[in-house]
Amino acid sequence: MDDPLAPFWNARGIALVGASAQPVKLSYGVLHNLVRSGYPGRIYPVNPRGGEILGLPVYRSLAEVPDPVDLAILMVPAEQSVAALEACGRRGIRAAVLVASGFAERGGEGREREEALRAIARRYGLRFIGPNAVGLIDTRIPLNTTFIHRMPEPGPVGLVSHSGAVCGGLLDWGAAVGIGFSRVISLGNQADIDLADALLSLMADPFTQVVAAYVEGICGGRRFLEAARRVSERKPLVILRAGRTPEGARAVASHTGALALPERIFRAVAHAVGAIVVDSLEALMDAALVLAMQPPPPGPRAVILTNAGGPAAIGADHLARSGFQLASLSMDTQEALRKVVPPQAFTGNPVDLMGGPQPSHYAQALEVLLRAPEVDAVMALFVPQAVTSAREVAEAIGHAASGSPRPVVGVIFGGTEALAAARVLHRAGVPHFLTPCRAAFALGVLREWAEIRRRLQAPIASAQPIDRGCATAVLQEAIAWGKDRLDPQAGAKLAAAWGLPVPPSGLAATPEEAIALAERIGYPVALKRVAPGLVHKSAAGGVILNLRKPDEVRDAFSRLIRPGEYALIQRMAPSGLELIIGAYRDPLFGPVVMFGAGGVEAELREDVTFRLVPFSEAEAEAMLEETAIGRRLLQGSREGRLERPERVLEILRQVGGMMQEHPEIAEIDLNPLIVGRPGEGVHAVDVRVILVREGPVPEAVLSFRG
Amino acid sequence: MDDPLAPFWNARGIALVGASAQPVKLSYGVLHNLVRSGYPGRIYPVNPRGGEILGLPVYRSLAEVPDPVDLAILMVPAEQSVAALEACGRRGIRAAVLVASGFAERGGEGREREEALRAIARRYGLRFIGPNAVGLIDTRIPLNTTFIHRMPEPGPVGLVSHSGAVCGGLLDWGAAVGIGFSRVISLGNQADIDLADALLSLMADPFTQVVAAYVEGICGGRRFLEAARRVSERKPLVILRAGRTPEGARAVASHTGALALPERIFRAVAHAVGAIVVDSLEALMDAALVLAMQPPPPGPRAVILTNAGGPAAIGADHLARSGFQLASLSMDTQEALRKVVPPQAFTGNPVDLMGGPQPSHYAQALEVLLRAPEVDAVMALFVPQAVTSAREVAEAIGHAASGSPRPVVGVIFGGTEALAAARVLHRAGVPHFLTPCRAAFALGVLREWAEIRRRLQAPIASAQPIDRGCATAVLQEAIAWGKDRLDPQAGAKLAAAWGLPVPPSGLAATPEEAIALAERIGYPVALKRVAPGLVHKSAAGGVILNLRKPDEVRDAFSRLIRPGEYALIQRMAPSGLELIIGAYRDPLFGPVVMFGAGGVEAELREDVTFRLVPFSEAEAEAMLEETAIGRRLLQGSREGRLERPERVLEILRQVGGMMQEHPEIAEIDLNPLIVGRPGEGVHAVDVRVILVREGPVPEAVLSFRG
Repeated sequence: MDDPLAPFWNARGIALVGASAQPVKLSYGVLHNLVRSGYPGRIYPVNPRGGEILGLPVYRSLAEVPDPVDLAILMVPAEQSVAALEACGRRGIRAAVLVASGFAERGGEGREREEALRAIARRYGLRFIGPNAVGLIDTRIPLNTTFIHRMPEPGPVGLVSHSGAVCGGLLDWGAAVGIGFSRVISLGNQADIDLADALLSLMADPFTQVVAAYVEGICGGRRFLEAARRVSERKPLVILRAGRTPEGARAVASHTGALALPERIFRAVAHAVGAIVVDSLEALMDAALVLAMQPPPPGPRAVILTNAGGPAAIGADHLARSGFQLASLSMDTQEALRKVVPPQAFTGNPVDLMGGPQPSHYAQALEVLLRAPEVDAVMALFVPQAVTSAREVAEAIGHAASGSPRPVVGVIFGGTEALAAARVLHRAGVPHFLTPCRAAFALGVLREWAEIRRRLQAPIASAQPIDRGCATAVLQEAIAWGKDRLDPQAGAKLAAAWGLPVPPSGLAATPEEAIALAERIGYPVALKRVAPGLVHKSAAGGVILNLRKPDEVRDAFSRLIRPGEYALIQRMAPSGLELIIGAYRDPLFGPVVMFGAGGVEAELREDVTFRLVPFSEAEAEAMLEETAIGRRLLQGSREGRLERPERVLEILRQVGGMMQEHPEIAEIDLNPLIVGRPGEGVHAVDVRVILVREGPVPEAVLSFRG
Repeated sequence: MDDPLAPFWNARGIALVGASAQPVKLSYGVLHNLVRSGYPGRIYPVNPRGGEILGLPVYRSLAEVPDPVDLAILMVPAEQSVAALEACGRRGIRAAVLVASGFAERGGEGREREEALRAIARRYGLRFIGPNAVGLIDTRIPLNTTFIHRMPEPGPVGLVSHSGAVCGGLLDWGAAVGIGFSRVISLGNQADIDLADALLSLMADPFTQVVAAYVEGICGGRRFLEAARRVSERKPLVILRAGRTPEGARAVASHTGALALPERIFRAVAHAVGAIVVDSLEALMDAALVLAMQPPPPGPRAVILTNAGGPAAIGADHLARSGFQLASLSMDTQEALRKVVPPQAFTGNPVDLMGGPQPSHYAQALEVLLRAPEVDAVMALFVPQAVTSAREVAEAIGHAASGSPRPVVGVIFGGTEALAAARVLHRAGVPHFLTPCRAAFALGVLREWAEIRRRLQAPIASAQPIDRGCATAVLQEAIAWGKDRLDPQAGAKLAAAWGLPVPPSGLAATPEEAIALAERIGYPVALKRVAPGLVHKSAAGGVILNLRKPDEVRDAFSRLIRPGEYALIQRMAPSGLELIIGAYRDPLFGPVVMFGAGGVEAELREDVTFRLVPFSEAEAEAMLEETAIGRRLLQGSREGRLERPERVLEILRQVGGMMQEHPEIAEIDLNPLIVGRPGEGVHAVDVRVILVREGPVPEAVLSFRG
């Protein structure tokens, strides 16, 4: 598989430009780390002063550096970075890391400087990491171009980050509890090598078993989507994103200059690529740890093995919230447990060994539980006591869990002893968590990963217009007339051409026409005022519902319609559950569909969810499951009170298809989409279609907030 | 102030029954801890074998123990515990701790044994802690009756727990990061001394500045409420409860035998007493720590001082979720900062000192920020780097933060260095958190505490019937007729007597009566079928709405009403926002009111909230703010689309008053309560009142789930 960072990893010689002999300088730290890492290639410090650092001869310029030299670490200030990169190009170096800050994140001149770096890279066919980046680590080569003050142990976690400090903190933390890393990539402002490249590099690395990403900005749009999706198809990808709130976005802008990405788009992107999204540094670490060490559980039945009832009860609560049940242990299992646990132990679930168990009790009970067919996952929990050694309990758990096809997580709840025990567990391949709460979260991540793998394999929801010619003609006509949106009749026609269930309707200029139309369509009907610029019709009082006779139609017409306006006469839909299905184009990631609670007050609700187009059948179903209105639809349908959800899923697919098929559509909005009782059907009573205007795709102006 | 545990703390001599000379036994551990704690009173090991342990003479029985002896620690098996407690009583000992398990948590015989202990205690006027309890610690006396393997440092945190292991784990954790404790009380099954007693004891202790509680069962109902409320009026009370899910409740039952308390009642109880509810062990510790060390912020404007942009951006996101904004630093403040920070530093917010700051930079920048009037709270964040000492940064932060009237929290994000720095910060009175996420959570807890203090001072919402005589007469008549609920007319009458806005209505037995009634009430009207046992009228299809003329009334009557049934004719309410307000009696805590989203599908919604009666005006307002439907009401009212919320708040108060005034009411249910547009009023179109039957108060059968 292609690794876009191969020129960095495979460098036969590395020049360190701006190397310093003063130990307080960061560039000294880099050289020190590089030497100490055991890097097998050549190392060339470069400094106009010459001399010797750490026993290595210092070259006065890049031009003097001998072959082989494939990678340059530029530790020069921002103002000298353009010249330094130019020198790399001239020397034939095709890979560089730029450490200095003072670029796009400071705006103005910094942004121009970053553009100059890109121009040099293009001219020489050179790739660079940064600026504002800490660099790279590979624990197997080994290679360490960073000034992070310790080299991590080799291990399964591949880390990519827009922040060098996040790398430093996580590596430090990992060292304290015995978590190893395969590769670490600090991207900084990602002016050239970006998140997509780094993900592909970690995908290509056979030692990386899980990818942990700290993300500030996502660039590259569809290129990122493809890279991230390819990762998820092979190994778990965990993302912690900053800038999810206005406060965070402000902090991100001053850190790496990344633009704000709306949370709803980020969520849709994460779904599309199969990423596991976490919300805190501890969750990033915990998720990476458990995914690196344990298999997903085959089902939701968990057991807690403990010497402490209270922490186990807290763990049971958190397991329930992570989607687990407490397994009901069979008579056979309890019988087998009784043979190996102390006499006072409780063999229900939680299995409570009570005060003063021996390490062997943990080992033997764990072996019994891992053989029990009714158990899908185990949390082994120990609170240190004066009479039992935490380290020995950790060793017993690690030994018994070894090679289990079902996941085991360990909790040693306490202080310094817990840290020592954590290292023991990690060596044995059992992830350790400080509390049962974190352990339950981690088991939940394993379940989520299993679910994501299932969804990634689901077929894409495909959509086709019923009458492509008609759909195209409607749009072309509107564009020819210079319209920025379809009028209601045209919108209904387009919708019908895609098989959307629009109630029969027509336009009337006079009360008589309105009555004739109503007679033809069939009572009861609704009458809506049609005038340019009227978007939220019912909110503006421009609708009269439930007209049952000619007189009522005439009366409504005269009350609502002014000269020059039209009345839209539409067959009344039954009342029912009101949904919204919409779509628009994100400038970075293309078409996005939305599903949520509809009706007059759609704007006030936050019960909506988004997906990039195309999406799988499984993702369409997930949209229903993750909204309250969707769950009401599913439950109402199960109980025979509402139409089946399949029709709604089909409309979602078709709306996605419309956005793919017709690039001239900027937005579609079906609101409300009414789901009636069984047999009453689903009705798109209001179809709004906004067209793409000249120039850039406009900001979304849909009737929802994400 | 009275301390129910005074006989325990003030014991002049302690007998340890079941003392063992074998170091592997827990009873040896207790004796060892007691001796090592520095307890200033007398210590008497008791064991039939006699001899000497740890240099102390062993007495063969309690009867032989000399004066003074005020407290007995019973380390005997469950089967011998009843006899041992009896011996305490005979010896004149009035305080005991029972450590053994094997009581209510095992059901049957264990439950009887626990009852026998209580009988002995009553007979001798003796108080006991446990059984199934680890005992007591006071770090100032000092006193340690537990076998927890380390004595905590003296400090501000008072801990009460239904689990000894939770105490052990938290103490161990506290020792690792330098958090001290004032008192620790392990309650076990709380067969005598219960949570309310322990809370009062921690309230009375001048060294306890914050109370952290791990809770499994709450007994004592209103007695608990009073104790907990008294605590909150003086110091913060943080509660972590287990058993909030069915899985957790099951684990709790097998641990301390506590009965499940529904989450909605627990939430209502926590609101009533002003407790801060947390959800994990780490949150319990973090909340206790920050509340013990820092004052609440005067406002929501926070600043992050950092050397690391990524972790700061993550912190900004979490601050936003905790209700903070990033303060906009004034020109003056930025000017003052520029004088004390490195030249490349960024003086926006986050204030980024960039790579390689000195400890003095942290100190001086922090001093500037704490003087800035636009700053309400500070997060000082440091990621260890090779060139700066984490310990020295911690010392600088601690020094600069000392005595600040605004809260400062510290984050040293990393591994072992972070733990050492944590101890430094804690000594200086600045709480340390491993990540900016936890620190932002902690600052949010300070905000919550300020909000709780405000609410605790708010006046109680008082309610009065408009016509007490009428209300009482309606209820007495129904009871005299042996009814288990009020019929709709009686319900409307009762509601009207309490000033609830019920639309005019009446009962009709014939179509002609119905028409006459409709003419008197005024069109349009609704016609509802009234027959015994019809609870969910509209769900059962027993309502026809919007009848506008006599013919329509006649037609509706003939379609809906069978011989022997009645028609309820009611003035149509306008359509509008549909709420539910209800109330019922909890067997432990008395009347509870509910507010939430109403209408036909109330049962499907989870958008409801509960409060114990009486509640304050501020709590009533909080009920609106914490539900989505309540927020829609507030926003709709602000925008002039809906009636003002005051009328709804008044109805909440009146419903609470009805439950207090009329103990014969088991449940009230106003569903839907319709809020119209401004001027259209609020309408309780359906009033259900269930009466208390003979025997125990029935389980709630209201139309909502909590």
